[in-house]
Amino acid sequence: MSIALYTKGWDQALWLSHFQTLLPNHTITAMEAVETFEDIRYAMVWKPEPGALARFPNLEVIFSLGAGVDFLLNDPSLPNVPVVRVVDPDLTNRMSEYVVLHCLLHHRRTLSYLRYQQAGLWMDREDPAAKDIRLGILGLGVLGQDAAYKLSIMGYDVMGWSRSQKDLQNMRCFSGEAGLDAMLSQTDILVSLLPHTQETHAMLNLDLFKKLPRDGALGGPVLINAGRGKVQVERDIMKALDDGLLIGASLDVFEDEPLHDSSPLWSHPNVILTPHNAAASSAKAITDYVVRQLSLYEAGQAMDSVVNRNAGY
Amino acid sequence: MSIALYTKGWDQALWLSHFQTLLPNHTITAMEAVETFEDIRYAMVWKPEPGALARFPNLEVIFSLGAGVDFLLNDPSLPNVPVVRVVDPDLTNRMSEYVVLHCLLHHRRTLSYLRYQQAGLWMDREDPAAKDIRLGILGLGVLGQDAAYKLSIMGYDVMGWSRSQKDLQNMRCFSGEAGLDAMLSQTDILVSLLPHTQETHAMLNLDLFKKLPRDGALGGPVLINAGRGKVQVERDIMKALDDGLLIGASLDVFEDEPLHDSSPLWSHPNVILTPHNAAASSAKAITDYVVRQLSLYEAGQAMDSVVNRNAGY
Repeated sequence: MSIALYTKGWDQALWLSHFQTLLPNHTITAMEAVETFEDIRYAMVWKPEPGALARFPNLEVIFSLGAGVDFLLNDPSLPNVPVVRVVDPDLTNRMSEYVVLHCLLHHRRTLSYLRYQQAGLWMDREDPAAKDIRLGILGLGVLGQDAAYKLSIMGYDVMGWSRSQKDLQNMRCFSGEAGLDAMLSQTDILVSLLPHTQETHAMLNLDLFKKLPRDGALGGPVLINAGRGKVQVERDIMKALDDGLLIGASLDVFEDEPLHDSSPLWSHPNVILTPHNAAASSAKAITDYVVRQLSLYEAGQAMDSVVNRNAGY
Repeated sequence: MSIALYTKGWDQALWLSHFQTLLPNHTITAMEAVETFEDIRYAMVWKPEPGALARFPNLEVIFSLGAGVDFLLNDPSLPNVPVVRVVDPDLTNRMSEYVVLHCLLHHRRTLSYLRYQQAGLWMDREDPAAKDIRLGILGLGVLGQDAAYKLSIMGYDVMGWSRSQKDLQNMRCFSGEAGLDAMLSQTDILVSLLPHTQETHAMLNLDLFKKLPRDGALGGPVLINAGRGKVQVERDIMKALDDGLLIGASLDVFEDEPLHDSSPLWSHPNVILTPHNAAASSAKAITDYVVRQLSLYEAGQAMDSVVNRNAGY
């Protein structure tokens, strides 16, 4: 069985060797080196060009090498075969590391203390307790639920919003458009783990930021986006920061990546940027997961994380 | 019943008013304004001068207004009455916020990413997963156990050391001198929550740092001290950082506080300093706790957190 591999911007030789070791009975070829398109049954890909997968007439399964599949679903010529994404505990755990870290960074005003330190100032401020900080999580899939659980263990007042209503322990759950407004109106730190779909496109915009309360325990709302960049409007984030609609932000994802050199976000004193690595799983964890899904498929069993194309994730 | 209050460096008028509101049937006086020493039955204090409490012949209980009591036990003239310290959930939760935040900060190399951001660099590094990072916690009292629990929920490989052997879930427990060396030899991030006692004095020194492994998942060991400053030797911390025995540190406490202006720790690029506020409880939480303990005492019941003077905490 032949497999085409594409890993935009990653070390493709490393990935080829990882997969070949785990799948000695399969032939794995870099997608751009495939000569006989008919041979390819499986594609394991991260951000191939639109149209690239349509060249393989006998494709049976497409495996995304990450949690996201927007780059696939936005390809109008995507073959009509199952798309599988990575939902592994390693990735989930790393995402929660990022979310808990950045909630704590803003809550405990770490950027301020680092500036005091640089200035040689021994200066204390009374920080609110976690229980007095209301977190609103957008997206309650595997990632959102894990983050919510860990944040509630840390003592935060956790709320979550999802497309369809959920009932989860230790948190208040909201859904739908009215539910969204209800949650936003009492959110001190807004955490987006949303996928990029038609519905979520540009959702984190000025109108939404205006719905966040400015009298919360932190003195104003904070935005954390570790989901997808195209869910946010960066110009609106800057404006909200300048106008005091937001007092800080942690952004791991951007409308275009890498973030443009000219973006004013780079140098905003209350913005923390990371290069889309909130949940950069190890290559090993991803290859293990994908190989496990492939084995299930070849054994005629259901795979764990087949994407619902209508929902977009 | 008369109470003497002393709150070194804090807003004493605020504390007087807090306590007076909660204890309308007691007379509460700032310690320096007490006229009739015989009237005082209770002392509620933060860092009074040695000898200050010996002036009250009818003292029944001394309440520390924090978790620490070293400043009391180091007073040779301390009256031989119960000493009660604050062990309240608010303080415990805040300490765990600090510990989890600083483990994540070093693990996820936040200082490096902030420097990349300042330089306008989109640059990624592969960070290890939490499960591959071994945390060694010194001190397994209420604070250490809570931090250990939350760190294990975050996925870390958690170990803990205490004077007497404990048996706790989800972590490996060590005790005694041999146990200390065994834990140190496999610790990537060392977290000290130790009280300051004769045994812990200057314990975090160069000899100890040499026992930490330099080939761990982070590329070298990290020190976090949120316990007591006199447990550490700051000159040795600087030397260990310079010599690569430590690759980073978060310090909330110092040998002398505030930290001297001349300390090289202020400007070390991999050191994060905070002004002894890791677990700065709100005045409300502390007064509530102390009043609850006082009520137990006056009702003839056992108080929750009477200090064992031999143990020192």
